[in-house]
Amino acid sequence: MAGSSFGNIFRITTWGESHGPALGVVVDGCPAGLALQEEDIQRYLDRRRPGQSNITTSRREADQVEILSGVFEGRTTGTPISLLVRNTSQISRDYGEIASCYRPGHADYSFDQKYGFRDYRGGGRSSGRETTGRVAAGAIACKILEHLGIGVRAYTRSIGPIVMDPARFDAAAIQETRTAMPDREADARAVSYLEEAIKRLDSVGGVMECRAVGVPAGIGDPVFRKLDALLAQAAMSIGAVKAVEIGDGTAVTTRYGSENNDAFCIKQGRVAKATNHAGGILGGISDGGDILIRAHVKPTPSIYAPQRTVNQSGQEINLQIKGRHDPIIVPRAVVVLECMTAITLLDAMLSNLCCRMDSLETFYRKPETLGE
Amino acid sequence: MAGSSFGNIFRITTWGESHGPALGVVVDGCPAGLALQEEDIQRYLDRRRPGQSNITTSRREADQVEILSGVFEGRTTGTPISLLVRNTSQISRDYGEIASCYRPGHADYSFDQKYGFRDYRGGGRSSGRETTGRVAAGAIACKILEHLGIGVRAYTRSIGPIVMDPARFDAAAIQETRTAMPDREADARAVSYLEEAIKRLDSVGGVMECRAVGVPAGIGDPVFRKLDALLAQAAMSIGAVKAVEIGDGTAVTTRYGSENNDAFCIKQGRVAKATNHAGGILGGISDGGDILIRAHVKPTPSIYAPQRTVNQSGQEINLQIKGRHDPIIVPRAVVVLECMTAITLLDAMLSNLCCRMDSLETFYRKPETLGE
Amino acid sequence: MAGSSFGNIFRITTWGESHGPALGVVVDGCPAGLALQEEDIQRYLDRRRPGQSNITTSRREADQVEILSGVFEGRTTGTPISLLVRNTSQISRDYGEIASCYRPGHADYSFDQKYGFRDYRGGGRSSGRETTGRVAAGAIACKILEHLGIGVRAYTRSIGPIVMDPARFDAAAIQETRTAMPDREADARAVSYLEEAIKRLDSVGGVMECRAVGVPAGIGDPVFRKLDALLAQAAMSIGAVKAVEIGDGTAVTTRYGSENNDAFCIKQGRVAKATNHAGGILGGISDGGDILIRAHVKPTPSIYAPQRTVNQSGQEINLQIKGRHDPIIVPRAVVVLECMTAITLLDAMLSNLCCRMDSLETFYRKPETLGE
Amino acid sequence: MAGSSFGNIFRITTWGESHGPALGVVVDGCPAGLALQEEDIQRYLDRRRPGQSNITTSRREADQVEILSGVFEGRTTGTPISLLVRNTSQISRDYGEIASCYRPGHADYSFDQKYGFRDYRGGGRSSGRETTGRVAAGAIACKILEHLGIGVRAYTRSIGPIVMDPARFDAAAIQETRTAMPDREADARAVSYLEEAIKRLDSVGGVMECRAVGVPAGIGDPVFRKLDALLAQAAMSIGAVKAVEIGDGTAVTTRYGSENNDAFCIKQGRVAKATNHAGGILGGISDGGDILIRAHVKPTPSIYAPQRTVNQSGQEINLQIKGRHDPIIVPRAVVVLECMTAITLLDAMLSNLCCRMDSLETFYRKPETLGE
Repeated sequence: MAGSSFGNIFRITTWGESHGPALGVVVDGCPAGLALQEEDIQRYLDRRRPGQSNITTSRREADQVEILSGVFEGRTTGTPISLLVRNTSQISRDYGEIASCYRPGHADYSFDQKYGFRDYRGGGRSSGRETTGRVAAGAIACKILEHLGIGVRAYTRSIGPIVMDPARFDAAAIQETRTAMPDREADARAVSYLEEAIKRLDSVGGVMECRAVGVPAGIGDPVFRKLDALLAQAAMSIGAVKAVEIGDGTAVTTRYGSENNDAFCIKQGRVAKATNHAGGILGGISDGGDILIRAHVKPTPSIYAPQRTVNQSGQEINLQIKGRHDPIIVPRAVVVLECMTAITLLDAMLSNLCCRMDSLETFYRKPETLGE
Repeated sequence: MAGSSFGNIFRITTWGESHGPALGVVVDGCPAGLALQEEDIQRYLDRRRPGQSNITTSRREADQVEILSGVFEGRTTGTPISLLVRNTSQISRDYGEIASCYRPGHADYSFDQKYGFRDYRGGGRSSGRETTGRVAAGAIACKILEHLGIGVRAYTRSIGPIVMDPARFDAAAIQETRTAMPDREADARAVSYLEEAIKRLDSVGGVMECRAVGVPAGIGDPVFRKLDALLAQAAMSIGAVKAVEIGDGTAVTTRYGSENNDAFCIKQGRVAKATNHAGGILGGISDGGDILIRAHVKPTPSIYAPQRTVNQSGQEINLQIKGRHDPIIVPRAVVVLECMTAITLLDAMLSNLCCRMDSLETFYRKPETLGE
Repeated sequence: MAGSSFGNIFRITTWGESHGPALGVVVDGCPAGLALQEEDIQRYLDRRRPGQSNITTSRREADQVEILSGVFEGRTTGTPISLLVRNTSQISRDYGEIASCYRPGHADYSFDQKYGFRDYRGGGRSSGRETTGRVAAGAIACKILEHLGIGVRAYTRSIGPIVMDPARFDAAAIQETRTAMPDREADARAVSYLEEAIKRLDSVGGVMECRAVGVPAGIGDPVFRKLDALLAQAAMSIGAVKAVEIGDGTAVTTRYGSENNDAFCIKQGRVAKATNHAGGILGGISDGGDILIRAHVKPTPSIYAPQRTVNQSGQEINLQIKGRHDPIIVPRAVVVLECMTAITLLDAMLSNLCCRMDSLETFYRKPETLGE
Repeated sequence: MAGSSFGNIFRITTWGESHGPALGVVVDGCPAGLALQEEDIQRYLDRRRPGQSNITTSRREADQVEILSGVFEGRTTGTPISLLVRNTSQISRDYGEIASCYRPGHADYSFDQKYGFRDYRGGGRSSGRETTGRVAAGAIACKILEHLGIGVRAYTRSIGPIVMDPARFDAAAIQETRTAMPDREADARAVSYLEEAIKRLDSVGGVMECRAVGVPAGIGDPVFRKLDALLAQAAMSIGAVKAVEIGDGTAVTTRYGSENNDAFCIKQGRVAKATNHAGGILGGISDGGDILIRAHVKPTPSIYAPQRTVNQSGQEINLQIKGRHDPIIVPRAVVVLECMTAITLLDAMLSNLCCRMDSLETFYRKPETLGE
């Protein structure tokens, strides 16, 4: 199984390189009967589009999506949905040095070792542009989840040392601030911090957070396909992510069990939890609480300051990277985390339709129908 | 795809419950020709066996492994290896309260929501005993990796607030200390900390770390099957793990790119890195450096102190858990992390045999052979 | 993905060799809540058990199944069901010649070429005993299908040139005749034919047929996972099968479209087909008609007459096979075809639960429940 | 796992409908370093292109392929290869009757039952045009196999009752005759037979055969992923195929074992077989002989003669199909069988690189390289 597919029932396969003619995704296993048009997908692509502020790359891409299959008369047919985005802003230039040297923090060397050579233009397949297909597919997953009453929302939790304050949480700010922080005050400080780093030809890191609200209890599998295990794979598969937390994450290791256990209680006649340290997942299966995931992102490896490295001939050299690069990955990547979370959740929810005899009985007692 | 399989080429499928007649694993895709006997596997199982000190559960299990298939005249045949461990220490008793209530921090409620009911004896499939099969399979992966010059070693990094000191790293201590810490001084303090928690009928958490040395550069896949993404799934799939870090992990988010990038250099005529903040993985593919993964484990949810919870009839109740439980999961789980890491690495290394035309050419130029 | 797993949602993984300590299967993804006991499985194993008449091998195996996991208080839990059958009748003897030569029609040579060596005792993994695990798993699939009103039944259609007459179809005869033919008259002639072949130290082939009644329309997938494509894989994966037909099969190639098309009509107010040349599948998806599959089985390659072959040293030799062998595979293999058909159908039916938005809506509108 | 992917390591995912904007395929897992250009693929697409003679549909499609990713500087990079073919000849017309009725022999009814509705334009996803993506991907597999000295060639074996004569086998005729028969005399008779059927507004069936020469012994897996089992799935997944044979196929059932076994012998110092009844596969693994597969194709269900059927309102009606249809599927489908065979073989050959310890040892003893 090659590496460009994710999900079992709702299964996406992405393709495309930073400087190739196009990027895209095939979504197989999307349930039939979903109203879908390009606008539904475009809204999500627009959130990751480059060139939107002074703290993102100056590369401008229209990132217009085209639905090539799987939708008929405005509804999904149950067959593969092929989505295509043309690359339009590849600047033709001399890749000489990048072609022959290994940029620190990048996948140049590891790709060469694996494949024997690489598409060196703009990172090729290891470019952040690879996430275009994920977002296009994730937009569909998000639409289905929304329809089922489930909200998935990611945002910037911190940039460098500047952390949002949950007390100032403002959902509207996520799409309005340049940092995608839900806290306008923290955003202002983060922008200053970034601008200073940019001046110094440097880059910074940060933390993304994603919360899913309304996920029913009972979603996920035991053992290897635990919901948190798949979410960890999903989040860690986003380039530059170096750590993943579920719920209270790393904080739990210094607590006692009596502090960390979430007591079950009855709220409004239903089972609930008094706290949610677990982040909505117990034993790999959702417990009805909000699902919370955090992804820690390293500073962009492309910096304009000179760096030491080696070239393919085995010589140590000084490298000065040119081109257009994001000084921080986080603000444009939050929608990617949101989409990967949604795809993971939807796939697990579909899988759950098959786990009990009573589902089978309910479904197959249904009389056959004539067309619609 | 149900949740009890992991790996694509070297593929393991575990089965069994805490209080059923047996647990086991089927390993499909193990290369033919590996010398293998029960003793190779038993060594690993012994490391996770319960009842070995005052800081683990008093349940005693022989955990004797039986090889039922896939090995002929002392060598693996390439066909599925079935490994079986009988449960011998299930104490027959009244599960009355546990059967009908939801233990905080456990999967009782989420299993009930998913499947409609559950095997409530000792956690059933969500018990830590589920990892028996993982360790049995992992022992095989470790043996192969060792044969290829790759060492994988996990240990306890911290217990509660007590962190090992890398300056005192002592590999022998891992198997000799009760905490599996490679630092005898930290171990002594951790044991005191634990004993105090046990007196208070409470439990504690900690951090496990695993280092793989000698992994060649070029292992792993781009996009969704990035080596770090699969390691994150592997680690997070271990019960009670709530966070996973690769390399410097969460620490990278407050650094500048100029600090965090690992400069490539030439050491002894070969490409190397001056530092290893990345934990040996760039763009999801190994870079030749040590691979480093950390898993953060919550305090054991089973505590003897009374807790508030609800029962299946929807009533809030006080619960006092009986039985035999580990006051900390970490020391017995390090071998599980080691095994999951080895399985993930081996599977990725096998997959790499197929990624270049020159491998195909080399292999299929080989003349047919007569038998051995 | 190694070769010992089949099915996506209802996924079986078989293991075990002819002369190893045991054989078995792990069934992952079986829906929770099915009443299941060993007797349900034993009935099916008894149908493939050797040593039951003069036209099967004289090897006697009890083939007693043991359920090791996945069933609690008489019901499936949704977690992996591990089934084990001990080998009890391996005769210890000198395999000298078989160990070093390639039996015609057997997998000795191809296994050696693939793996470098092989378990030569009784065919090892390529033995017909490998189907034990398939039948054990298939018994579960059959039970679920029956519960949903679907009947799957396989039988011997022909032995050598002797073909059953559909006009004399007698379902009771399938389990009562030695040939598993549903036609007692044809059975008598087939037994004579077989006895004569046995006298001549030879073996014979035949055709198995399987019919599934009550499968709702709409089951299966387009393109590669067409229901007939998966049934073909399932049937062809049974050792010694050399051809597979769906519906009228090979006969369709000399017909005109006007003869071969099944006209749709209305019967009792519902869509039906006037004929069923298609064998119940159109475009890879069930059409509500009976599903019909035929598998053509070669004569047992193990014959007692002397044969020319070569040994591992590259010498041409005369070989006289000893041991206990079935002079025909068909009568004991019909239950294997029945089981593989049932597994394929059940997996496709489970998959269908996920293919429409309205299923998702129905399922996730359901309120959460308190336990059972 | 939805139905539009095939293969495990060399994995293809097709998408697109007959009358949508485009069709295509994503090939993931193609080894890096293969020289590849659009012309390599176009040659294969041209062989299945419609509108080439009086015995194929008059629909004309350019079927120009575009490589959108995975190839850099003329070589495959190891990342997904996305191939796109625009539909150009969809005639805009009234689908009124086809939209609301169920054509006999077509998937209209079964799609409606599965998905609740369907893309009724030209068969949508169940159209023969779906095979465009298979052929584009298969062209790559064929190129790799050729490079390794393996030839895969499919042709028409029979049309209606007219069978080619192996004594007149003429490879050049396959691409020169309208029927794709390798026998010009049989071709002439088949064309007459077809023209007569066309005059009667009817359609005919036939048999395709594919032979792979040079496949090394040892390819394939035991049990469910037997090489013949996967070939059977591959062939049966081609629309309108109703039976699949390997080697002598159905003919083996009336033979004795002594007739059907292929004796091993020594030819030119190597193990060979005196005959090849088995079609080059023993126990699911290649034996070094030619691999032979036959696929039986039903007459095109679209005929111009009036037929009885029902509509979605449950009324019985007379239907007269309009549009442009092939009176026989076989001549244009042989390249599809060839491509599916090649994909199956290549995937199994890649898988084989991982099945022995000595492969691992050979590969990982290799020193790391600097770039190319």
